[in-house]
Amino acid sequence: MNNKVLIVGSMALDTVQTPFGRVEDAVGGAGVYAATAASLLAPVCLVGVIGDDFPSEALDDLQERGVDLTGVQQVAEAQSFQWSGQYEYDMGEADTLDTQLNVFADFDPVLPAGWQDCGYVFLANIQPSLQLKVLDQINSPMLTVSDTMNFWIENARDELLEVLSRVDVAAMNDAEIRQLTEEPNLAQAAQQVLGMGPKYVLIKKGEYGAALVARWGQFCLPSYPLPAVIDPTGAGDSFAGGFIGFLAWSGQAEEEQLRQAMAIGTVTASACVEDFSVEGLQRLTVTHLYRRYETLRGMVHFDECPLPA
Amino acid sequence: MNNKVLIVGSMALDTVQTPFGRVEDAVGGAGVYAATAASLLAPVCLVGVIGDDFPSEALDDLQERGVDLTGVQQVAEAQSFQWSGQYEYDMGEADTLDTQLNVFADFDPVLPAGWQDCGYVFLANIQPSLQLKVLDQINSPMLTVSDTMNFWIENARDELLEVLSRVDVAAMNDAEIRQLTEEPNLAQAAQQVLGMGPKYVLIKKGEYGAALVARWGQFCLPSYPLPAVIDPTGAGDSFAGGFIGFLAWSGQAEEEQLRQAMAIGTVTASACVEDFSVEGLQRLTVTHLYRRYETLRGMVHFDECPLPA
Repeated sequence: MNNKVLIVGSMALDTVQTPFGRVEDAVGGAGVYAATAASLLAPVCLVGVIGDDFPSEALDDLQERGVDLTGVQQVAEAQSFQWSGQYEYDMGEADTLDTQLNVFADFDPVLPAGWQDCGYVFLANIQPSLQLKVLDQINSPMLTVSDTMNFWIENARDELLEVLSRVDVAAMNDAEIRQLTEEPNLAQAAQQVLGMGPKYVLIKKGEYGAALVARWGQFCLPSYPLPAVIDPTGAGDSFAGGFIGFLAWSGQAEEEQLRQAMAIGTVTASACVEDFSVEGLQRLTVTHLYRRYETLRGMVHFDECPLPA
Repeated sequence: MNNKVLIVGSMALDTVQTPFGRVEDAVGGAGVYAATAASLLAPVCLVGVIGDDFPSEALDDLQERGVDLTGVQQVAEAQSFQWSGQYEYDMGEADTLDTQLNVFADFDPVLPAGWQDCGYVFLANIQPSLQLKVLDQINSPMLTVSDTMNFWIENARDELLEVLSRVDVAAMNDAEIRQLTEEPNLAQAAQQVLGMGPKYVLIKKGEYGAALVARWGQFCLPSYPLPAVIDPTGAGDSFAGGFIGFLAWSGQAEEEQLRQAMAIGTVTASACVEDFSVEGLQRLTVTHLYRRYETLRGMVHFDECPLPA
């Protein structure tokens, strides 16, 4: 067991249109966003699959950040996973225009030698059966985090429930938690998810922030307010990357560090959405992270209740 | 100038359907919700209009809470304002099924003698020209808060802008702020509203909490998590009532008290949505308020950033 962060997830070429611009075949994918984010604070081991169209400069960028790419399979004469989406004026949820799985359709995550000992594991949104396959390969990690999506809740529920029974932190957005539990009340829905096995439920609420529901209670944060949100793509994965990267840096995952990790995740996501692709994450420094963290801390601080108890 | 809270707003009979039940002709209206909320912490002077169908027990309840009803005009042989709405499964926004203005159509807020000196003023969502008429009648209050809605943004923009130029706190939900400013980014939209005159913008986000944007920065809170939300009607007005009631109780409205008032508003709104009509607010005690306030404080607390600055 070491302090490395194992990240398993998609590596994609994204075509994204927002009211503020458009990028074509820009580097993206949950694995890439999370790895870029986590690598600011901890060494990262990335498992994914790409075609020969994936830009080598993007791979160089990741390696320069300390991301070990030994686990990335590059398939010759094949295309990378492609996603195309569009955001409306309110920048809420993306409308997916097109998805081409390409090499991702046959993704089979195999950990290189030694990676079984990564202490921190983020299973980004992939088929739950593949998440299970990764869990089968790792040795007693400090902390495991999984993400998922509506498609797997509908089409691979049993495997997803097995994943949830085996991870420490189940990350989902509010709609997914409601869909999984068929419970509209979010507080109750999160309790139901806790009953499925994970120690924590990390609820992602997009522009409305995030919450961590634990047996000791709930921790909530608003999103970091920004004068301009350029592209929300990757925000959730950047949050998860910052969250787990911080815990790996810290070496502890008690309540105190989990709360801090939520703040780090919030700030990391804010850097992500300030630009297209991973540009904003690449510009984020530890100093920026520190400053926004402390600003966020001030934003939610209030003194004790002066009313009589 | 005294420590009384002047509240001007609707007094209604609501018919509300939620997934958890239904009430018919239940006591409601922004003025009633806000007055019930504020009166837990400060003396309240309520200005409104009702027909002879408004239940006398509801008036008694208000008076027992210290709400002075001298400013409530009761019109004989006429019906009170009636609103009928329905909430879906997710308890987000109400679908209005019917609105009968009745006596409210001719509402003309006139302050009884002595009420001009109320130190705290909440102008609930009514026609901006009537809000202005109230502002014309009061003497140098400590703090004024206004609410509004999409209808006035569309149909009485000039008067609304005049209101905003004359109040201290402009309360609006996120959609209304975006509509008023035609700016999708909430942080920028709030800055634009500040430019219209108010010292603070109180952004209501429903289940996602609330934010106070000031020249000194932004303060944000999630909503108080509840195992059961029964009826969201009146949550925003209860928030405003708790907010201004606390400031009146405190006698100060500096940054420290404004942050505390946001937490009091959050907790007050949580009590409101736990039951139909004003039942939840009526059960709220200062002790409950204190306990939930401290729980909320724990929910958003995190320690300083351990990363190097």
